[in-house]
Amino acid sequence: MSGKTLRLHIPQWQGGNLEAYHFGAQLLAWLAPAATGPVATVEVAEPDGSGLSWEDGIVARSVLLKQLDRAAQVLRNETPDKVVVLGGDCLVDLAPFAYLNERYEDELAILWVDAHPDVMTPQQTAHAHAMVLGNLMGQGDANFTERVARPVKPERVMYAGLFDMSPAEWTTIERLGLRRATPSQLIDSSQPVIEWLRSIGAKHVAIHLDLDVIDPAQLRSVYFTRPDAAPDAFDGIPQGRMTVPQVVRLLNDVAEQVEVVGLGITEHLPWDAITIRDMLQALPLIGKG
Amino acid sequence: MSGKTLRLHIPQWQGGNLEAYHFGAQLLAWLAPAATGPVATVEVAEPDGSGLSWEDGIVARSVLLKQLDRAAQVLRNETPDKVVVLGGDCLVDLAPFAYLNERYEDELAILWVDAHPDVMTPQQTAHAHAMVLGNLMGQGDANFTERVARPVKPERVMYAGLFDMSPAEWTTIERLGLRRATPSQLIDSSQPVIEWLRSIGAKHVAIHLDLDVIDPAQLRSVYFTRPDAAPDAFDGIPQGRMTVPQVVRLLNDVAEQVEVVGLGITEHLPWDAITIRDMLQALPLIGKG
Repeated sequence: MSGKTLRLHIPQWQGGNLEAYHFGAQLLAWLAPAATGPVATVEVAEPDGSGLSWEDGIVARSVLLKQLDRAAQVLRNETPDKVVVLGGDCLVDLAPFAYLNERYEDELAILWVDAHPDVMTPQQTAHAHAMVLGNLMGQGDANFTERVARPVKPERVMYAGLFDMSPAEWTTIERLGLRRATPSQLIDSSQPVIEWLRSIGAKHVAIHLDLDVIDPAQLRSVYFTRPDAAPDAFDGIPQGRMTVPQVVRLLNDVAEQVEVVGLGITEHLPWDAITIRDMLQALPLIGKG
Repeated sequence: MSGKTLRLHIPQWQGGNLEAYHFGAQLLAWLAPAATGPVATVEVAEPDGSGLSWEDGIVARSVLLKQLDRAAQVLRNETPDKVVVLGGDCLVDLAPFAYLNERYEDELAILWVDAHPDVMTPQQTAHAHAMVLGNLMGQGDANFTERVARPVKPERVMYAGLFDMSPAEWTTIERLGLRRATPSQLIDSSQPVIEWLRSIGAKHVAIHLDLDVIDPAQLRSVYFTRPDAAPDAFDGIPQGRMTVPQVVRLLNDVAEQVEVVGLGITEHLPWDAITIRDMLQALPLIGKG
C-alpha cells in the first residue's frame, strides 16, 4: 500500500503549558524532509506570555478541545491513508491516531516511543499532554475520550524506551496490561517489539515518538535540558535513555514488518535556537537593541 | 545616521573545515529578525563530504579566496552604509569589515567578541577562520592581506570575552598592543570597552560576535559541544565564559556610544538541529527510512 500521506503541523503548546513548544514545532517543520503529499496546519493560538487557566482539572481544557476538533476536521476533509504529525506537545497525536484507528477499523497498533507513559488523569496532573495515550484507549477525562470514536485496545499498544514511572502510572499500565520494552532491551535488537507486532497480527502501526525518549546527553532539545532549570528541578523524573541510532533502527525494523501509517514527532524544545533568536532580536543593528 | 544596511549571508564552512557551518548559517538566517534592507547571499560551494585540500599552509585556500572576492563584489555593488553578516565560520567577516574600514576612511573601530583572538598565521594553523582579525590588520598570509585595501590599525581593535590563548597568540597580541576585556571584567559593566571607544574617538564600530564566546553551558550550539567529541578533545582550548545577557548588554552599551555599522554573527553549530534533521531523514514515513 502506498496511499495518501498527510503532513499535519500542530504547533500546540497548551497541552504542556509551555510556550516553547510552539516555536519548537515551527523549527521541527523547517528541519523535516519535504512532504510528499498534502500539508496542513492546525490553527493554534499563538503564545503571548499571558498564561493559561486551570479549567476543571486540566490547564487550557477548552482551547485544547477546540484544537483537537480542528485537527479532526482536517483529517475528515483530507481522509489520508497515513499521517505524519509534527508537534507540538504530546497531545497532538490524539486526533490523528484516533482517526487512524477508525481508518483501519480497530486494527491499528500503536508503538509509543517515550520516556513517559502518558496515561495520567486529571487526578495526577493538570497537563493534558501526559494523558494522551490513556485518552486513545478510552481512559481519562470524558471531554477527551468522547472524541475517540474507537478506543484503541490495550493489547494493541506497546511502549519502547519506557523504564520507570510514578506509582499511579505503574498501577494503570499494569491494570491495562500494556507491553513495554525498556531501553536496555532495545540496545542491540528490536525483537521485543517485532514479536509483539507478530503476536497481535498487526498490519498497520502508528508510532508516537516523544523526543524525550532520547538521552539528553545526545539530544539537548528536550524538556529536561531547559537551560534555566534549577539543578534539582527534575529529580526523580525519568529522562530518556535511548540513542538516536537505536530509535532509527527500531522504527525501520518495525517498518519492515508492518505498514507505518502514522508517525508523530513531539516535544521538540530547541532551547539553543530560542536563545539565539531572542539574542538576535535584542542586539543592535540586527534587532531592536 | 541611518543609511542602508545590507544583510549578507555567507554560509562559509571551509575556513573552519567543518561542513556543519553551512547548515548552521542557514538556520541562523532562519532565526534572525527580518532584514530591514537588501539581503544578499554569497555563493558558497555546498559541502558534499568529499573533504578539502591543504593548499600551501591553508586548507581550501583557493575556494576561500574565491568566496572572499565574491563577498567583496557584493559589497561594491550594494555600497551599504552598514552590514549585518550571518556566517558561517569566523572568516566571513574579512571582506565586510575590510569594506567598512574603507567606507569609514580608516576610522573603523572593531570590537572582537570572541573566546579566541583569531590572529594565527599558517605557521600555527591551517584553518583560515583563526586568522581573520590578523588579516584585517594586515598580518598573515599575503593572499588574504592583499585583499584588505586599508588595514585596520591595531589601536582601533579591542577584544571582549578573551581570557587565554596559545603562547604564539599572546606574543602577537602583545606585539600589536591589542586591548582586551576579559569575561570577569565585563560581568557587571561594559566600562572597559566604552573607555577604549572614547579614548580612540571612535564614531563607527564593527562588532564580530563569535558565538563561542558564550559559556557552552548556556549555549550548546558551538564548536566545543559537538556531541561526537571525545571527552578530552578540547583540553586546554579556552571555551567561552560570557553569558547571553552580558553579551546583549555589552553590545547595546556600545551602540549607545558609537554607531554600530557592522555586526557579524559567526560559528553557529546547531548540533541538535543537525541530529534531528538527520534522524527525520532516516525514519520511515517521513524520510527515506
